[in-house]
Amino acid sequence: MFTLEQAQEFVKNIVSQNKYKNEPKGLYEPIEYVLSNGGKRLRPVICVMAFNLFSDDFEKVIPPAMGVEVFHNFTLLHDDIMDKAFFRRNKPTVHQKWNDNTAILSGDAMMVEAYKQLLKYKGENFREILEVFTQTALEVCEGQQFDMNFETQQIVTEQEYLKMIELKTAVLIAGSLKIGALAANSSIEDANNLYQYGYNVGMAFQIKDDYLDVFGDFNVFGKKIGGDIISNKKTFLLISALKIAKGEILQTLNSTLLNKNISEETKIEIITNIYKKLEIDIITQNKIAYFLNKALLYLEKINVESAKKEELKKFAISLSDRNN
Amino acid sequence: MFTLEQAQEFVKNIVSQNKYKNEPKGLYEPIEYVLSNGGKRLRPVICVMAFNLFSDDFEKVIPPAMGVEVFHNFTLLHDDIMDKAFFRRNKPTVHQKWNDNTAILSGDAMMVEAYKQLLKYKGENFREILEVFTQTALEVCEGQQFDMNFETQQIVTEQEYLKMIELKTAVLIAGSLKIGALAANSSIEDANNLYQYGYNVGMAFQIKDDYLDVFGDFNVFGKKIGGDIISNKKTFLLISALKIAKGEILQTLNSTLLNKNISEETKIEIITNIYKKLEIDIITQNKIAYFLNKALLYLEKINVESAKKEELKKFAISLSDRNN
Repeated sequence: MFTLEQAQEFVKNIVSQNKYKNEPKGLYEPIEYVLSNGGKRLRPVICVMAFNLFSDDFEKVIPPAMGVEVFHNFTLLHDDIMDKAFFRRNKPTVHQKWNDNTAILSGDAMMVEAYKQLLKYKGENFREILEVFTQTALEVCEGQQFDMNFETQQIVTEQEYLKMIELKTAVLIAGSLKIGALAANSSIEDANNLYQYGYNVGMAFQIKDDYLDVFGDFNVFGKKIGGDIISNKKTFLLISALKIAKGEILQTLNSTLLNKNISEETKIEIITNIYKKLEIDIITQNKIAYFLNKALLYLEKINVESAKKEELKKFAISLSDRNN
Repeated sequence: MFTLEQAQEFVKNIVSQNKYKNEPKGLYEPIEYVLSNGGKRLRPVICVMAFNLFSDDFEKVIPPAMGVEVFHNFTLLHDDIMDKAFFRRNKPTVHQKWNDNTAILSGDAMMVEAYKQLLKYKGENFREILEVFTQTALEVCEGQQFDMNFETQQIVTEQEYLKMIELKTAVLIAGSLKIGALAANSSIEDANNLYQYGYNVGMAFQIKDDYLDVFGDFNVFGKKIGGDIISNKKTFLLISALKIAKGEILQTLNSTLLNKNISEETKIEIITNIYKKLEIDIITQNKIAYFLNKALLYLEKINVESAKKEELKKFAISLSDRNN
């Protein structure tokens, strides 16, 4: 069995061996740039981990692992255009370094490339793997649309928020695990339980992201604290606060959200204090724990010996407990 | 056997029965808008025609036909953003009617949707169909990149131009035919000959497009004549003219291309006259005939009775002879 670190090393190797040096360079250089730019490689790593519960024949998991990684990076590339993001992983985004057209077209090619990687897979469940992947990819697009809708939507309910992160984040983590299991020819039941494990890990992961934006430690988190507060982003924290705040606190919260004359520091301070008063930190931690526990329950159901599942258990806990 | 008109009617029906009414509306409404907006439906029609050479079990060809049509419309959607095109088929383009972000994301979803359509296919050669489709899709992206490169590239050779239209246009026509044949479980040899037929038809089709932009009849062509001349687009005509022009004609040609102080009408008149003097119209017609003849030779090689191939023969001739 691979440890998490071994799976990460394995993924790092297969990604770095896969070079994009074809012509036209204008199309393939941005792809190479994005894929060689590191990141957590979360999705291929868990794909390999899920596969490894049932098989050690690692050659077989390379196409699905590459497929989910290339697809995920494609979504980042296009999301960065839509969000007008300047940096990703401490380097200029593709549309910044090149231009929007390049980012659109290289992204398109990456999505096709994700399928090309998957098509290298010659094992069992070929159709099933493609079906899970395709359904997941469509859901990720839907999630991004809901996320964009939130920017102009006055009120976002907790339910809408959870649906959005489910589609935008959780399903791809879930799908990566399921695809890994299917590539190892697991039972459908085990594959589905891994999907549910991944879904709940993904939900916890995303809510933790919201939490760290406010309650993280800058030196550990590596990102500026309070970015979501400054942009009035409809995070789990803000949505929860708007749901339970009343009277004076609600008034202060609303007026601070609308106030364009206060400094960023002041805005972060006021809203963080409101969150603390309303115990949003505790509510958020509880929600993370809720999804983490569900993830672990699904993991238990999987029909392999407990020792083999230890790494995925640690992984789920570490993602929920992470400080960066 | 379907006639061309029957195949068109069949395709029109399957496309119109396929509605995109899901949530989020912001994602699916543009898809429905694009797909319900007509067009020649060339690619699914020839996919069905190729299929029909070997089979009458039309249910089987619906997924591949839908797949190529959805994919083609995805490329138009994203190309229109990159080209900043305002209109497509006499209606505002998606990025005009909505915005760039919507056009990017709905396009992405359409590309996944193309695969989703293909995955409904349950017959023989499933893997082969996906492989042809994926390779073709990647080549179309490469073609669009070469086309964009041409805008800033000083000199484009005829060879580079032919490579570009091969990738941007011909391979998808070729691939649509091959996929149709594979869905009917044709021999690989017949499928490859149909690919070559389609490749050559596609080349002729695209060069005819360049020809009609200059020598077409506005009332029949439906587009403004001389649009390519005004934008100095590197068409087959301009590339050929630059190749053979000498002395005074070359000087006039170059100075007219650079002259920003003449009216559009004058520019069109001068350059059209140069084309006529250099017999570019004849050279272009000869090139179209060259590809048309090659297409018909490949069609002849296909192992089905001649009568069945009559419609594809007429189709190739009509595309090359078309006035719109």
